[in-house]
Amino acid sequence: SEVKKIAVLGGDGIGPEVVGEALKILKRTEELYGYQFETEHGLFGGIAIDEKGTPLPQETLELCQGADAVLLGAVGGPKWDNNSKELRPETGLLGIRKALGLFSNIRPANVFDCLKEASTLKPEVLEGTDLIVVRELTGGIYFGEKFRREGANGEEAVDTCVYNVQEIERIVRQAFDIAMTRSKRLASVDKANVLETSRLWREVVNRIAVEYPEVELEHVLVDNCAMQLLRRPSSFDVIVTENMFGDILSDEAAMLTGSIGMLSSASLGEGSFGLYEPVHGSAPDIAGQGISNPIATILSVALMFRLTFGYHDAAKSIEDAVKDVLDAGHRTGDIAVDKSSAIGTTAMGDLIAAAM
Amino acid sequence: SEVKKIAVLGGDGIGPEVVGEALKILKRTEELYGYQFETEHGLFGGIAIDEKGTPLPQETLELCQGADAVLLGAVGGPKWDNNSKELRPETGLLGIRKALGLFSNIRPANVFDCLKEASTLKPEVLEGTDLIVVRELTGGIYFGEKFRREGANGEEAVDTCVYNVQEIERIVRQAFDIAMTRSKRLASVDKANVLETSRLWREVVNRIAVEYPEVELEHVLVDNCAMQLLRRPSSFDVIVTENMFGDILSDEAAMLTGSIGMLSSASLGEGSFGLYEPVHGSAPDIAGQGISNPIATILSVALMFRLTFGYHDAAKSIEDAVKDVLDAGHRTGDIAVDKSSAIGTTAMGDLIAAAM
Ligand SMILES: CC(C)[C@H](C(=O)O)[C@@H](O)C(=O)O
Ligand SMILES: CC(C)[C@H](C(=O)O)[C@@H](O)C(=O)O
Repeated sequence: SEVKKIAVLGGDGIGPEVVGEALKILKRTEELYGYQFETEHGLFGGIAIDEKGTPLPQETLELCQGADAVLLGAVGGPKWDNNSKELRPETGLLGIRKALGLFSNIRPANVFDCLKEASTLKPEVLEGTDLIVVRELTGGIYFGEKFRREGANGEEAVDTCVYNVQEIERIVRQAFDIAMTRSKRLASVDKANVLETSRLWREVVNRIAVEYPEVELEHVLVDNCAMQLLRRPSSFDVIVTENMFGDILSDEAAMLTGSIGMLSSASLGEGSFGLYEPVHGSAPDIAGQGISNPIATILSVALMFRLTFGYHDAAKSIEDAVKDVLDAGHRTGDIAVDKSSAIGTTAMGDLIAAAM
Repeated sequence: SEVKKIAVLGGDGIGPEVVGEALKILKRTEELYGYQFETEHGLFGGIAIDEKGTPLPQETLELCQGADAVLLGAVGGPKWDNNSKELRPETGLLGIRKALGLFSNIRPANVFDCLKEASTLKPEVLEGTDLIVVRELTGGIYFGEKFRREGANGEEAVDTCVYNVQEIERIVRQAFDIAMTRSKRLASVDKANVLETSRLWREVVNRIAVEYPEVELEHVLVDNCAMQLLRRPSSFDVIVTENMFGDILSDEAAMLTGSIGMLSSASLGEGSFGLYEPVHGSAPDIAGQGISNPIATILSVALMFRLTFGYHDAAKSIEDAVKDVLDAGHRTGDIAVDKSSAIGTTAMGDLIAAAM
């Protein structure tokens, strides 16, 4: 098979360490399955600000544009928090999404058996929770016009939330397609009782629903969804929503599984290209100590194999290996009950690679 | 003492029934404490649409404007869901907030001992949870310009989120004042890494914080807050945030207490005037059956006594009576473990009035 090019952006904090373990998994996949990967590293986020004066250097963008997929660690840290907008890591994140046309963020939120107890929800409520949040990623209030102006009552700030039919259609169609591969249930989340963008959203969803008669569709208001995720998490299958609501709800959903340190995500555009990253952040407080948990990043590689490369055999092998290593009782500090027996980042990576 | 005028808007679904029990409590308060109330009913919500062709008739607005406080049941129902915007109950709700200048929505989210088990959160996580969400209620994306237009990629919809310094100042100052009466901890929630309105919000919060050196302030991003409410609910005291984030987070916070059917809320403007209502909705499915739980509405009266009238003695008497009745084992169906022994709406109201 052809060589797959992967742009590797370690980023900040624990990003480079966890990505390092994911690279081990790529190497192991080559040995076991004969697939071939060409990886190239790029500067992104805070480290790119420090070294290149911008969170998303042109050469990093070009590296990604020339790749089949991007593997990202995490960006950000207190060091850059008070910078002006152009010099903040998250500006790079928003920039790369827009520049690569990654309009869809996919976050599976499932419960790891060994972490059931880690959730703050009661186990019986959590039982069977396995949902996916499909979040629109390049539109809405994130990318609309923003400015300050003098108003009648002093300075005012303005953000604009804009959605067009085409932007809504492509994300909604993708969500229906994903629902078709699962339990065929889709919850579309909006605030149609208040927002014009939500009313357009709902119209488009209803129009596209006709093409998917098998999918059971429910419209849920965003405030109600924030409640229902708590009340009946296992009743959700696929949730599709706009950018800002998706930001909030996908974090809520991830947290309620208790497995947030283990969850991976994909950001997709048209075609098979995708950017893959763990849901957790850059955890600057534990960076460089070799104690971070690489599993979410390793599972992001499995997601990349499934969604971008169609390497389902290797993806399954990674997922099974993670399960086996956890079942055998190995834990990094973040998920260990007995912290004294916790293993480090590289030990965890080695064990998973060996278990494949 | 002078006669207090209360505008009573029963609204739709179970609204009129639960408000009926709250009126019993007003009467009982007159007997016990010598306070005097003059109540007048107004049409509001779906019933006003049916009878007057608008969810907020002019005479209802004038009734409220001439009152010292408003007691609201709940509005809405499937009957009006597909109406055009002007003929939907929630348009009345947004209209009354704006017309009465109710810029602040206050929602205490605490855990009722007898309902501890009703939460989907583990009891040990919930332990000690007692927070207040202070939500800005007349600004932001709810009230900014909204429209449709033809764009390059077909029809598009636009919502505008606007905040000026004065709007932010008054709600933030109120939140600091509330924090001063409690544990002196304030979490200000925004999305300052993305939104211009949030950056202005944060600037104002930091400026006002200087006036409250005793209050421990934390800035929390909205997505992180949705997570932290699940992870460490009891660590929050007062949360202040803008309209849309407040809509989502206050519902999440209410639901995680497990006590959502028992929670009251206040919407306040400048001065002592306020609108009081239960957090729960109009529950059209059980309307008219006499089985709804009036406690949230009765506790809204207690909140009115505290915040608008300063009748702390009577407020405490109501709160204690509710506690006593629950401690004695009386339950409406929604909170009963053994549904067969559940009592009805009026029986619950009578018991609480008698226990005052
Ligand atoms: C860092 C921030 C801009 C970003 C977002 O809001 O999209 C993050 O919260 C995420 O969800 O990836
Ligand atoms: C009905 C709706 C317009 C309203 C809101 O979003 O403010 C409701 O959800 C609330 O929180 O009171």
